[in-house]
Amino acid sequence: MPERSSGEDDLFGPHNLPYGVFTTADEPGRRRLGVRLHDRVLDAGAAARALGSPYETLLAQPGLGPLMAAGRTAWRDVRRALTAWVTVPAHRAELQPLLHPLDALTLHLPYEVADYVDFYSNEHHAANAGAILRPGGPALTPNWKHMPVGYHGRAGTVVVSDTDVVRPTGQRKTPTGPPPVFGPTTKLDIEAEVGFVVGTPSPQGTSVALGAFRDHVFGVCLLNDWSARDLQAWEGQPLGPFLAKSFATSVSAWVTPLEALDAARVAPPARDEQPLPYLDDTDDEDPGGFDLRLTVRVNGEAVSNPPFSSMYWTAAQQLAHLTVNGASLRTGDLYGSGTVSGPERGQRGSLLELTWDGAEPLDLPTGKRTYLEDGDEVTLSAWAPGPDGTKVGLGEVTGRVTPAATGG
Amino acid sequence: MPERSSGEDDLFGPHNLPYGVFTTADEPGRRRLGVRLHDRVLDAGAAARALGSPYETLLAQPGLGPLMAAGRTAWRDVRRALTAWVTVPAHRAELQPLLHPLDALTLHLPYEVADYVDFYSNEHHAANAGAILRPGGPALTPNWKHMPVGYHGRAGTVVVSDTDVVRPTGQRKTPTGPPPVFGPTTKLDIEAEVGFVVGTPSPQGTSVALGAFRDHVFGVCLLNDWSARDLQAWEGQPLGPFLAKSFATSVSAWVTPLEALDAARVAPPARDEQPLPYLDDTDDEDPGGFDLRLTVRVNGEAVSNPPFSSMYWTAAQQLAHLTVNGASLRTGDLYGSGTVSGPERGQRGSLLELTWDGAEPLDLPTGKRTYLEDGDEVTLSAWAPGPDGTKVGLGEVTGRVTPAATGG
Repeated sequence: MPERSSGEDDLFGPHNLPYGVFTTADEPGRRRLGVRLHDRVLDAGAAARALGSPYETLLAQPGLGPLMAAGRTAWRDVRRALTAWVTVPAHRAELQPLLHPLDALTLHLPYEVADYVDFYSNEHHAANAGAILRPGGPALTPNWKHMPVGYHGRAGTVVVSDTDVVRPTGQRKTPTGPPPVFGPTTKLDIEAEVGFVVGTPSPQGTSVALGAFRDHVFGVCLLNDWSARDLQAWEGQPLGPFLAKSFATSVSAWVTPLEALDAARVAPPARDEQPLPYLDDTDDEDPGGFDLRLTVRVNGEAVSNPPFSSMYWTAAQQLAHLTVNGASLRTGDLYGSGTVSGPERGQRGSLLELTWDGAEPLDLPTGKRTYLEDGDEVTLSAWAPGPDGTKVGLGEVTGRVTPAATGG
Repeated sequence: MPERSSGEDDLFGPHNLPYGVFTTADEPGRRRLGVRLHDRVLDAGAAARALGSPYETLLAQPGLGPLMAAGRTAWRDVRRALTAWVTVPAHRAELQPLLHPLDALTLHLPYEVADYVDFYSNEHHAANAGAILRPGGPALTPNWKHMPVGYHGRAGTVVVSDTDVVRPTGQRKTPTGPPPVFGPTTKLDIEAEVGFVVGTPSPQGTSVALGAFRDHVFGVCLLNDWSARDLQAWEGQPLGPFLAKSFATSVSAWVTPLEALDAARVAPPARDEQPLPYLDDTDDEDPGGFDLRLTVRVNGEAVSNPPFSSMYWTAAQQLAHLTVNGASLRTGDLYGSGTVSGPERGQRGSLLELTWDGAEPLDLPTGKRTYLEDGDEVTLSAWAPGPDGTKVGLGEVTGRVTPAATGG
């Protein structure tokens, strides 16, 4: 197959090969596993069949679950096979008919989300949010530099990119306190995050060590943790975010294999506190960070470029923490990094921070914005350095806000 | 079939008929749907087949999911059929071989838990916990009487009764603050709760009104929300409980159909604040409370009798709140009531409250207890008034604490 490399196409060359699930207009009921190459999608199951590959049982599936559950050796071997298929000229004629134009396909959530956990592991974000939401107190809670603080979210409302997001309704506090007001949120926000998708399960009552990260995490996606800040401020004590987050979480349709990000590994920022042994990655073989460069667009306009390399806690530390109490992992578990923000204003991953809770509106071609208005469309994108000077893109995650279903 | 009614058997007579999933010693790989009658379990699928019932497709299943998803009319019709099968003498000979002795069976989690949410809706518990954990401040947070406060838990670690619970390990705060200590929890607690199991799903972007509770909730179980209080105190700010709860949640193997609790409906306590319209159940057809009488046993010794009728927020209000932001429901969603406590010390549903965080140990035949020790076994049981002077039992939920897997 010819390699193409021009403009945006560079992000999805043969060094990337993310997985997704698609249907065609002809057969809307038949979901198929696909592998993205530039602006086309290879029907992976059909390719395996055509080439007589032993991986047909993993690839000729309506979802990514069986491959995700197959474990690290299978992930590597299948990826090697796919790389050969799309790069060896001998396969060109055979595979050509199995490559579908991306823009003709419908993409679906590629796996069933088991449990969804969201972390809060970026110091810039945590400090900004603390300063805004808990003025007068310390920006970071005392536990923050000792553990990746996190909470469970709602797996059932994780949706694939391009799904509309209905503005949520709920209770918010008036400035003078109770009684609360009921109605559509007036502070609908985004959180630009990176999601990690668990493939290999682990048994209840055991923990996953830092060094076992690659054995369990199948791949990476982009994640928008939509948030209603007014609901969150009123409901959040003492048990944390609930309805302010549970209405929708958007993920990209493409899961980039962890291996595709090998060249993007970087050391995380220096730690101010010595981590407890189960979180101490000093001797870890892989640098724990990823040099992923995110962009947040609102109605097409870039408003922020959050650097994922700034995350204080790494994805491996998050997984070790998540399981240190003996919590089991299931294939399909998804965890979010927490909002990615950098030290600069133009690197903040939420409108809460970008507009300082509305005090400093963004001036967009589509108008001034504090929080999101109905009809607004938010897109997260990201790329990382790949091998040999290439770039590896994560699938974009897009969502448009539609008006509240229930009135005030 | 002859009706039997002696002693504990009364709780599982033909007015109850809870659903479960069992395997026999002969066929440990074949899960079957069962209906409990006294101390026996009817193989529901085999019975449907033997009697030529149209409900065979719902009952001859390895799990409860298809029946749960079939909706309220199917729930009622299947229950009517089952009631006839076990009470009409003509069926006796045919069904006799399909009744297995309960104590010869292995019971399993009867459905796949989709999302697990835990509420905090008992005023006695919330006030006790607030006084202990946030001394000096107001016992209830300002939102408490305006909404059923809740949070998402980990669905993947919900286990069926009789599953051992490994003592969790994690970070706890020393009295003088950081650096934190790492090791097995020293404050392993229980929370005696009632669980509600969702059958009928609802679409994302819509909410479920108070009056639609019966259309969505399939049944009721007992639930023990195991909690590590020292982990919880250190990790809980600002995002709520995480590892302190996510290691295990135990539920009873039997799901009692909502209809079996019709005679147990009672009015909830008077509300001190006027609820917002979506939570206002004044005109609701059914009284929102349930007169369920719980018992907590530690190593066989009854230590508490929490009255479920004391819940401030009802299960219908919890469901309306859970979905008011447009969060969808899936078949298999499970939500816990929150710890059930009454006004008296002997009615408290957690050791946190029963021992006032260890200050007032319980004196048990097996020794003094502040929190749980390795080897301790906790059992929750409950019954409610049934029709015609009968009693309806919920399945017991039992768990034994085993030593921590990872050291300090």
